[in-house]
Amino acid sequence: MARLIEYEDASAEVRAVYDDIKASRGIPDVNNFWKALAVHPPTLRRTWESLKQVMAPGALDPLTKELLYLAVSIAHGCDYCIASHTASARARGMNDEMYGELLAIVGMAAETNRLATALQVPVDARFRDDG
Amino acid sequence: MARLIEYEDASAEVRAVYDDIKASRGIPDVNNFWKALAVHPPTLRRTWESLKQVMAPGALDPLTKELLYLAVSIAHGCDYCIASHTASARARGMNDEMYGELLAIVGMAAETNRLATALQVPVDARFRDDG
Amino acid sequence: MARLIEYEDASAEVRAVYDDIKASRGIPDVNNFWKALAVHPPTLRRTWESLKQVMAPGALDPLTKELLYLAVSIAHGCDYCIASHTASARARGMNDEMYGELLAIVGMAAETNRLATALQVPVDARFRDDG
Amino acid sequence: MARLIEYEDASAEVRAVYDDIKASRGIPDVNNFWKALAVHPPTLRRTWESLKQVMAPGALDPLTKELLYLAVSIAHGCDYCIASHTASARARGMNDEMYGELLAIVGMAAETNRLATALQVPVDARFRDDG
Amino acid sequence: MARLIEYEDASAEVRAVYDDIKASRGIPDVNNFWKALAVHPPTLRRTWESLKQVMAPGALDPLTKELLYLAVSIAHGCDYCIASHTASARARGMNDEMYGELLAIVGMAAETNRLATALQVPVDARFRDDG
Amino acid sequence: MARLIEYEDASAEVRAVYDDIKASRGIPDVNNFWKALAVHPPTLRRTWESLKQVMAPGALDPLTKELLYLAVSIAHGCDYCIASHTASARARGMNDEMYGELLAIVGMAAETNRLATALQVPVDARFRDDG
Repeated sequence: MARLIEYEDASAEVRAVYDDIKASRGIPDVNNFWKALAVHPPTLRRTWESLKQVMAPGALDPLTKELLYLAVSIAHGCDYCIASHTASARARGMNDEMYGELLAIVGMAAETNRLATALQVPVDARFRDDG
Repeated sequence: MARLIEYEDASAEVRAVYDDIKASRGIPDVNNFWKALAVHPPTLRRTWESLKQVMAPGALDPLTKELLYLAVSIAHGCDYCIASHTASARARGMNDEMYGELLAIVGMAAETNRLATALQVPVDARFRDDG
Repeated sequence: MARLIEYEDASAEVRAVYDDIKASRGIPDVNNFWKALAVHPPTLRRTWESLKQVMAPGALDPLTKELLYLAVSIAHGCDYCIASHTASARARGMNDEMYGELLAIVGMAAETNRLATALQVPVDARFRDDG
Repeated sequence: MARLIEYEDASAEVRAVYDDIKASRGIPDVNNFWKALAVHPPTLRRTWESLKQVMAPGALDPLTKELLYLAVSIAHGCDYCIASHTASARARGMNDEMYGELLAIVGMAAETNRLATALQVPVDARFRDDG
Repeated sequence: MARLIEYEDASAEVRAVYDDIKASRGIPDVNNFWKALAVHPPTLRRTWESLKQVMAPGALDPLTKELLYLAVSIAHGCDYCIASHTASARARGMNDEMYGELLAIVGMAAETNRLATALQVPVDARFRDDG
Repeated sequence: MARLIEYEDASAEVRAVYDDIKASRGIPDVNNFWKALAVHPPTLRRTWESLKQVMAPGALDPLTKELLYLAVSIAHGCDYCIASHTASARARGMNDEMYGELLAIVGMAAETNRLATALQVPVDARFRDDG
């Protein structure tokens, strides 16, 4: 299990990232994920900078972005990420009904993904060149 | 590669499902996925009935549902599903900006999912019991 | 795409493995998988020896073993393996009905696997210590 | 971790599903999986109805179906599902020898799946159109 | 399949990234990956900046870094990435013997990963807190 | 959770494997992985023989082999394997800087693997036939 680096034990480089996370999110302390990632300051800083950019408001609203993050985390089986992004999605407005529908979609996609792979279905001409 | 069962070669049971798909979606022919799945009529029928229920309008709007389906299909690496759900999401209004943000989230989640798993980060107390 | 090493171009060490595969299976030539794996003779030999041992008749009959191999190959999304093990299972007696039921189980397991992971369901006391 | 909805706290809709699970399986209480999935009654009901249909006796016998379910759950890394389906397979007759052979196949398939993917082996002509 | 954006059709923002890739790697044109990712210029730029930083010489030498990238790409089943990183590793000095040993490790890890997951092996006390 | 078979309760066949593991590695007791795998002695013996062969010194040095094993274990999300191979890599000389770079590569590969899969990027001609 990861060694967690607390603020008082952190280098100036790590503290600067922690400070930016706390200020950006308006929270008193950073999550364990960041405290563990601080084992390698360049990866801590790059990951936070990337995440901040990716999750900023854009063409997709913040709740939709959190729902997507949660769905992918489930598909990858990351327990920590499921716990943290379920909480984040709740905080951004995901109610039980939305959560249930997200679960249903993730489960259904898992099922049809495996069926299509098993059957080695050729892509329909009208779906090509549509990325 | 899958044997595709065309309407004219299909049993009455399979035709009934094809007819419902075409009517529900307003399309002249079903996708190759359904033509391949028709190798086993009970699985064809059950999968279609489930998908119709899961993707119906609900607390999440149809575009959000398609974005989630696409994100999960990418995480599972199903080429057919990526092609078909990219097309479906486009048809429901996904533009280049939304698509780019979805790609960024899927990629970013893949990265932090692996990092959190690698570090075996303990779940923060405040993220527990939040499902 | 892999360089395929044909019998006439193979070293004596590789030919010996090819000969054993052909004799064990009663086939005139080895599959492309073995011709590609011959890039590294020790891995070719070890993989074949292991596979021969694992797929030999035992407490599970040969058809059940092939069905399991196919199901896992679908879950891992290996297109080559799906193609070759679908053919092997067919050769050992898998009919359309069995194939359809296997597809249904793989799909259903994918769905409930993701649901249980998403919900982070605690293991029931009666399921523990049961391996 | 999931909120578990016990029978006495459940709605009539959820109780009806719990009652059917208990009657179908002849057990006094449902597993935690169902108690967690009850957060979304439509997904609870649909998942149970699908599972009941998929796992009913058919061309494949109940033990073979459980072995397949377990193998796929291992491939997807779902800890809860591995625990519950190992127990179910044991209850249907899986002994240590069968279990050991299943483990060996799942492990071996994982290995050759990755090798075939790594080598990007072209599918042999005789394996095509064999789904 | 992705729309590929060639240099002559690219915006100034995209051209700047292409120019930096070409200069950094000393190649006359960028790979298809970048031409496809250019559908979303911010993701193109961020991904390139991150990759450049991650793959720069450090405590691990460039060949070891490429071997790791290739191994992970195999585990994730990304055909494009396997093709491109096999080529990159070859260019940095991976010979047939190294390639064969990498294949053997990836396959062996896949096998023991599934076995340990299947058996739900408790972590030995001496392996804890060692990240 | 797995039943662990201790030396004093093991059959002669299992003890012989345990003895070889202890002698090869110079350790007083085998890891829990082997104690769990002893449920099926043929798989225990075959897995150990294969692992011993694969991890022996070769064209790749022992530290590089451990780094590759760890990276693949992260990609597959095997918690036990991540714990044991992080410890093994540390024992073979992986320092914090190397560990951080490995994490960065695994995360970055996860990200670009998903992006390339999502975009269904066609393989560049110069990357073909390069395995």
